[in-house]
Amino acid sequence: MSSIRPKCLAISGGVGGAKLALGFAHILPPEQLLVVANTGDDFRHLGLPICPDLDTVMYTLADINNKELGWGQQGESWNFIAALTQLQGETWFALGDRDLATHILRQQLLTTGASLSEVTRTLCQRLGIQHELVPMTDNPVATIVQTRTGESLAFQHYFVRDRCVPEVIGFEFEGLAAALPSPGFLAGLQDPDLSAIVICPSNPFVSVDPVLALPGTLTAMRASEAPVIAVSPIVGGVAIKGPAAKMMAELGMPQSALAVAKHYQGRIDGFVIDDQDADLKSDIEALGIPTIVTNTVMLTLADRTLLATRVLDFAHQLSTTKTPS
Amino acid sequence: MSSIRPKCLAISGGVGGAKLALGFAHILPPEQLLVVANTGDDFRHLGLPICPDLDTVMYTLADINNKELGWGQQGESWNFIAALTQLQGETWFALGDRDLATHILRQQLLTTGASLSEVTRTLCQRLGIQHELVPMTDNPVATIVQTRTGESLAFQHYFVRDRCVPEVIGFEFEGLAAALPSPGFLAGLQDPDLSAIVICPSNPFVSVDPVLALPGTLTAMRASEAPVIAVSPIVGGVAIKGPAAKMMAELGMPQSALAVAKHYQGRIDGFVIDDQDADLKSDIEALGIPTIVTNTVMLTLADRTLLATRVLDFAHQLSTTKTPS
Repeated sequence: MSSIRPKCLAISGGVGGAKLALGFAHILPPEQLLVVANTGDDFRHLGLPICPDLDTVMYTLADINNKELGWGQQGESWNFIAALTQLQGETWFALGDRDLATHILRQQLLTTGASLSEVTRTLCQRLGIQHELVPMTDNPVATIVQTRTGESLAFQHYFVRDRCVPEVIGFEFEGLAAALPSPGFLAGLQDPDLSAIVICPSNPFVSVDPVLALPGTLTAMRASEAPVIAVSPIVGGVAIKGPAAKMMAELGMPQSALAVAKHYQGRIDGFVIDDQDADLKSDIEALGIPTIVTNTVMLTLADRTLLATRVLDFAHQLSTTKTPS
Repeated sequence: MSSIRPKCLAISGGVGGAKLALGFAHILPPEQLLVVANTGDDFRHLGLPICPDLDTVMYTLADINNKELGWGQQGESWNFIAALTQLQGETWFALGDRDLATHILRQQLLTTGASLSEVTRTLCQRLGIQHELVPMTDNPVATIVQTRTGESLAFQHYFVRDRCVPEVIGFEFEGLAAALPSPGFLAGLQDPDLSAIVICPSNPFVSVDPVLALPGTLTAMRASEAPVIAVSPIVGGVAIKGPAAKMMAELGMPQSALAVAKHYQGRIDGFVIDDQDADLKSDIEALGIPTIVTNTVMLTLADRTLLATRVLDFAHQLSTTKTPS
């Protein structure tokens, strides 16, 4: 961090991304961090607007996230779902009793005409979050998973109900072409003081791609002087969490950080891989992507802040070489 | 029940009415009992349709009612409200974690286009309730409490938020003139085999009056051969539960079972008072209302079934004298 005052925009999916976002929040003052969460996995369930990635990041920044489960709130109870089971309601998506308050209040605020960005700001303020968190868009975008059997699945049906069992052959993002980056996201990308755009270690296909594919986003990223740095979610050939590696295999890609770098090629200016994958550095750099090797497995808060620091230092190095287009 | 096979329609508000309804359910087979619940106290809260009286009766019939609180479900937890408090949401109306499942599923089913009657039937079936429970109407009716200060309060604001503190000068039932009795309620009233219409010991002003004031209801009650019998909710000058006695004082009425009988005069064929009020029997009968004296304080299930039995016997006595108009 030293003498520079980096202004960082971090793009995050769920758990892995939220960990690095928390690392940034611990080393950057509020005005120097903007976290942008994927909303492509949002869906309506039981009449409520559910934003899994956005809430995982929000709960993580508020330090009320459930560390054991990796989703939902700490100190959670499950009596709502128990009663709904008795009533033969839809219970495949477990909504905790505390978590429900978020969805019901969000629905109430959205009904007043507030945008998802505005609602998110309100919820974050009330949870005491200092840093800014925005959804990637205020428009509805729905990730659809195309499967080998020909069936198309809404993302949460694939992810939660079917536990990622169906074989994936591709993805579709309904509503994406008509969606706009949220005002906060766009303003962040266009901020002349921006010094780093970080793609957190999240699922490239279903957490990051929807964000990058939002109309105007890549153009704004390329026009920024801030380098775009992605942190590999694949370490030692496996995903720390979630179905990223399984998806890569099903899509015919090698399950490696190198394959992730190739996936992002043309969209990033730098790549971060784990110590375990040090041998891939030269292959990735041969793609024209400067790469650093560090610990990316974030078990402790110190791991999170150290990785965040390394990424910002890397951005500082790269900033002298990026030529905005 | 000896030789008669009574078919009973019981009109109920919340707790007190539900106790007697349960008594009937224990002595009558499903096809011989229809319970009609007040929905004048229904309201939307946090975007959800809340039906306090209907749910109290439903939970009571399903034997999952919270006996300590007198509302909500047994084994309830309060983590939703705790989280909503943290989020600075509206928490004056305590929704339990289990109770929420009812409201969310009801909202979901109503959204599909089902009527409140249909939704109630579904919820009752899923809770294993054998007897039929219907809302008084499928149309929205909202009880408004007019207060001494000139302020008009939505019923639950008066009842729960303001704990019945404001002084009452009158009531208004928004939507009532345009509402119709629910199909089940109307069919029950018009059933030629009906042998008793029972007004359970519920608040006369805010639980029973909205039901009786539904267009067509009194006419159908008068046209029925079944006598209409009310059980006094006032015992020894006080209400067993709720603000009925306080309301009577504020409305300038004596706080007595006699005043309740006068309130129902012209709408009932018989009245039931508690042993404690035996001295009022002659004054009530002087109004032209045949009256029986029995224990109406239902502390145990035996109390409930015994009172239900007494009421049905009384209806049988009265049935020979009623001349439908």
